[in-house]
Amino acid sequence: MVKCSIIGASGYTGAELANLVEQHPQMTLKAIYVSERSADADTELGTLHRRYLGQLNLPLTPLATADVAKAAEGVDLVFLATDHKVSVALAPGLLETGVTVMDLSGGFRFDTAAPYDQFYGFTHDSPEWLEQAVYGLAEWNAAEISHAQLVAVPGCYPTASLLALKPLQEAGLLKAETTPVINAVSGVSGAGRKASMVNSFCEVSYNPYGVLNHRHQPEIALHLGNSVIFTPHLGNFPRGIVATITAQLADGVTAAAIDQAYDHAYAGKPAVRLYNQLSPGHWPSIGGVANTPYCDIGWKADLESGHIVIGSAIDNLLKGAASQAIQCANIRFGLTNYPISKKAAL
Amino acid sequence: MVKCSIIGASGYTGAELANLVEQHPQMTLKAIYVSERSADADTELGTLHRRYLGQLNLPLTPLATADVAKAAEGVDLVFLATDHKVSVALAPGLLETGVTVMDLSGGFRFDTAAPYDQFYGFTHDSPEWLEQAVYGLAEWNAAEISHAQLVAVPGCYPTASLLALKPLQEAGLLKAETTPVINAVSGVSGAGRKASMVNSFCEVSYNPYGVLNHRHQPEIALHLGNSVIFTPHLGNFPRGIVATITAQLADGVTAAAIDQAYDHAYAGKPAVRLYNQLSPGHWPSIGGVANTPYCDIGWKADLESGHIVIGSAIDNLLKGAASQAIQCANIRFGLTNYPISKKAAL
Amino acid sequence: MVKCSIIGASGYTGAELANLVEQHPQMTLKAIYVSERSADADTELGTLHRRYLGQLNLPLTPLATADVAKAAEGVDLVFLATDHKVSVALAPGLLETGVTVMDLSGGFRFDTAAPYDQFYGFTHDSPEWLEQAVYGLAEWNAAEISHAQLVAVPGCYPTASLLALKPLQEAGLLKAETTPVINAVSGVSGAGRKASMVNSFCEVSYNPYGVLNHRHQPEIALHLGNSVIFTPHLGNFPRGIVATITAQLADGVTAAAIDQAYDHAYAGKPAVRLYNQLSPGHWPSIGGVANTPYCDIGWKADLESGHIVIGSAIDNLLKGAASQAIQCANIRFGLTNYPISKKAAL
Amino acid sequence: MVKCSIIGASGYTGAELANLVEQHPQMTLKAIYVSERSADADTELGTLHRRYLGQLNLPLTPLATADVAKAAEGVDLVFLATDHKVSVALAPGLLETGVTVMDLSGGFRFDTAAPYDQFYGFTHDSPEWLEQAVYGLAEWNAAEISHAQLVAVPGCYPTASLLALKPLQEAGLLKAETTPVINAVSGVSGAGRKASMVNSFCEVSYNPYGVLNHRHQPEIALHLGNSVIFTPHLGNFPRGIVATITAQLADGVTAAAIDQAYDHAYAGKPAVRLYNQLSPGHWPSIGGVANTPYCDIGWKADLESGHIVIGSAIDNLLKGAASQAIQCANIRFGLTNYPISKKAAL
Repeated sequence: MVKCSIIGASGYTGAELANLVEQHPQMTLKAIYVSERSADADTELGTLHRRYLGQLNLPLTPLATADVAKAAEGVDLVFLATDHKVSVALAPGLLETGVTVMDLSGGFRFDTAAPYDQFYGFTHDSPEWLEQAVYGLAEWNAAEISHAQLVAVPGCYPTASLLALKPLQEAGLLKAETTPVINAVSGVSGAGRKASMVNSFCEVSYNPYGVLNHRHQPEIALHLGNSVIFTPHLGNFPRGIVATITAQLADGVTAAAIDQAYDHAYAGKPAVRLYNQLSPGHWPSIGGVANTPYCDIGWKADLESGHIVIGSAIDNLLKGAASQAIQCANIRFGLTNYPISKKAAL
Repeated sequence: MVKCSIIGASGYTGAELANLVEQHPQMTLKAIYVSERSADADTELGTLHRRYLGQLNLPLTPLATADVAKAAEGVDLVFLATDHKVSVALAPGLLETGVTVMDLSGGFRFDTAAPYDQFYGFTHDSPEWLEQAVYGLAEWNAAEISHAQLVAVPGCYPTASLLALKPLQEAGLLKAETTPVINAVSGVSGAGRKASMVNSFCEVSYNPYGVLNHRHQPEIALHLGNSVIFTPHLGNFPRGIVATITAQLADGVTAAAIDQAYDHAYAGKPAVRLYNQLSPGHWPSIGGVANTPYCDIGWKADLESGHIVIGSAIDNLLKGAASQAIQCANIRFGLTNYPISKKAAL
Repeated sequence: MVKCSIIGASGYTGAELANLVEQHPQMTLKAIYVSERSADADTELGTLHRRYLGQLNLPLTPLATADVAKAAEGVDLVFLATDHKVSVALAPGLLETGVTVMDLSGGFRFDTAAPYDQFYGFTHDSPEWLEQAVYGLAEWNAAEISHAQLVAVPGCYPTASLLALKPLQEAGLLKAETTPVINAVSGVSGAGRKASMVNSFCEVSYNPYGVLNHRHQPEIALHLGNSVIFTPHLGNFPRGIVATITAQLADGVTAAAIDQAYDHAYAGKPAVRLYNQLSPGHWPSIGGVANTPYCDIGWKADLESGHIVIGSAIDNLLKGAASQAIQCANIRFGLTNYPISKKAAL
Repeated sequence: MVKCSIIGASGYTGAELANLVEQHPQMTLKAIYVSERSADADTELGTLHRRYLGQLNLPLTPLATADVAKAAEGVDLVFLATDHKVSVALAPGLLETGVTVMDLSGGFRFDTAAPYDQFYGFTHDSPEWLEQAVYGLAEWNAAEISHAQLVAVPGCYPTASLLALKPLQEAGLLKAETTPVINAVSGVSGAGRKASMVNSFCEVSYNPYGVLNHRHQPEIALHLGNSVIFTPHLGNFPRGIVATITAQLADGVTAAAIDQAYDHAYAGKPAVRLYNQLSPGHWPSIGGVANTPYCDIGWKADLESGHIVIGSAIDNLLKGAASQAIQCANIRFGLTNYPISKKAAL
């Protein structure tokens, strides 16, 4: 049994993560923490997220930044489900104890400090850990994840976007010097658990936001190895992301080559479901992925004009956060692939 | 043209009211006000409620309590779309100028001060105006409204409940010494325009609240003249209320007597639509009333056991607030019955 | 391992059931069937319900009524997730083979045939099985369920209503000769998986239906042992039920007596969560139970007037159907209490 | 008063149109028709669309194709809110009577017959009327609309897309030989009023559909004068469209030039609201346009890389259908610009 603790468990992602760890046949959840200033301190997690009432009974233990090493005591793995700046502040103190850290924030997803000044509005003071952190895109970086001490679990939009584009990019099927266009919509939980007018029920409808300056655009570009235009939208549903991607194909690319690229990338990787194989005629949807650990991908090309449109869907709280963190932990500690294979776990 | 101003126009009700006044063929909107401490001061209303962008261009003028009489200058009618305590603080200063006031809060809906201590948590300091205020249930109190200086526009739940129950109560069709049971659900706009966890998109689902101690229970009981059990629910939709009411009938009541009671109450009153006449086989619904000024009522009785179930639906922001205030103003100033009759208004 | 088959697996309830059986550590799903006339015949279940794509890969085998005994071959337990009339037609042929049957329809929930003529519109031709069938309200009828051959799994509305009312009724806390009033709202999946105008996205809002003649009213009354007024509502959400119940208490009932009645009924029964203990100050909600196997119950009384209001919430597809069927199967075959205790199952 | 009739008034668009005509200060609604085979024949419109109960009391008169000229008797203008093939079958018989026809279907939106074989699956048998029909994009084609006998009111997606792109295209600001990418989401009412699994409440979530072969792609391309990649999505809301468009700018284009292009196109055209002027910092949204006759447009450019992202929102049933048809009728008959200017109408 891998012993785990979670810092920042009061949010939507943290609660999902606590639930997955609790149910994982090879993990034990030892403690969950919140900031010592949090109004949720000492509350049982199930009381905050009543879906888990009577089931997730650990209290949210208040934790001061100075005492962060306590969260590493007696555990093999600490999950950080904290804000970017908090993760950057806490991670070094944890890592020094030798514990493995999975960070679900954006705090370690870049390999240099510069993007933090530009896109996150703070100066990153642990550039040495930026170098060591492994980007936890589970289907692509398993070898590195398997011996990483610090894994930067990818953002929700980047997960949906990269899993759709990387097979084509890596296989050389995209036209050189063109820029894929990514339009994506996220459920409101993507904005976190907090009171705000923007997330208020009567104010949410559907609209673009963060146009041409969202911090996930450089994250996608870096890990894809290509520029992208990324436009996020707020959707009127609680959870899930659909990314619709339009790209130009290199000359002469065939449908068979595209299929082969996806097969090659995801054969034996059951968290990615290829719709053109499994459910031809349908497209990935929020309904198909909400409350699941899957990334669903479908595509269609106009070979004459050389355009491809790819649909990619995930649950932002699971494959876009908590279940991808579990996938990384499974790889790191050699565990069964729960939650994909529930009975195989036995 | 009746000249109007609105205090508290930044909220959902205030914006609906401003729109109705702007479109009313016999009204002119002279000014709209917010608290001098409001973050929305000096903003154009259409920028806050972008449905009205380019259409409601008046700025939200900041108004100090001490200067409230300014809101009465040059107008015939002031609408108060403010919080209960604010209305109680502002109304006397307005009324002293001789202007007519329509208050959409709960500040003047009781005829004595005692309920304010018990249900609103503050001591009412204008008991003389409680006596003079007329309860603005338009279909029932037109005679008094027609010469009132202060109208207390009913609450949203009370409007839906009273319009459904009063015809039976007044006709003596309810069993003596029994207590009708009112279950009602409201859209989230009923909680007002503000950031809060309870109104946060991901937290809203459907649940009862305020059980056995909601302030609308005594308001309904007072104006019905009977005790009631009132249980409100929060629904996952932006606007609208459905009240489902179960009551016991007096011995020997017939279906014809019930029909006659409703006909008698609402013949010639087009804001109430009787489904058993207009659309037999259907029941009032949120979809039928959202964005309309109507109250829809349907009923079915089990004459053997002597039970009746009544369904009553309104838009909480319109018939439950803004359009009922307009109805009262129409009665008070002898105007056409806009917004029910749009062309007749010409 | 208990070997199972499911007839009628194409609907929403059937799919949930298939998923639970697949994940149950002590069950094996051998086959799933649909009517031989179904358009879904030979389709893989995961293709219909793409949430389960790649996970529920059994094809929907077409089954003729005459061949129903085939569904019992090689299995210990057959679940019927079929329409009422279909269940009545199929069950006898299955039971004759000696197999155990869990029927999720209303086909065997009454103990006499008369209600079928009155409320279901057909004449029940297996009155002998009506007598033998056990009503599968798991928390109340475990002793009988443990050796039943035919279990009639309760309806969704009756489950929410009976679990809330029976503790009071059995403890003699309800006032004699009064009729509890049950108002309940169900998500749209309660109407089944089919194309209809009523279930069409743009037509669904929130409204009462089936007033004073819904077939669940006599089902609740029979198994409660008291008359009830039951008014169902259609809600604008996919799954979940909240029942709000208003009843009169017997003279002198105390809050402690009510708490004791609920404790007595549900101590050691983890599928029922008592909010007054676990989460005081909150009320059961759709968000708290959707996608869970729980029934959440909260209450508040006005001891002066002798009224109690009880809130009760379930997922209509789980505790109101599929997971309650699994609970019954666990009792019948002596299995672990999956899906409540996921790890305990190991 | 312009006398009007509507054929196909039972659908969502038809009902909106009937309501607008009824409220128009210079129009009279003489009759509404449905197919003689429709189940809605002889029903009052308000009974089908209960929002309008008691308000739209005309019955849906059954009309045989052979008798279509009857719909032109005594009226100046016939609106066709019928299916594409039905419009093509009915329009010639109406036009021969000399009446003016506004067709809300796709039946006359192309100038040649070929696209009907390819994209609509039928052979168009009135090519002479395709030549004469004017495309009713009100802000762009007013001169031609003002003396047209047949107006082809644009599709909902094309309206949102063309109003956003044409100012740039006409001003020469788009890079030559590049293809704008249009991603758009529509509310479910866009699929019409009918029972289907796809529109069923529990099946609707959010997903792309019709990828690279939707009939609105060639409609947009034709009336823009440029190729486009158009990907529609189904959204989980009843009404409204948001189109997000990514395009490449010609070399050296400045922000001022873009602003000037939009100002030039829409100055004095109040149905288009330019967010960069009216509400800087916000983006067009469903909430901002639902139940309104507006098209809201906002944009942001990355002048360094030469990309522009434009957001464009409309109500698919109003500016995407019914209110645009009214705009065309206002232009054709020289009427006031209701429903934009409500009081100006007086």
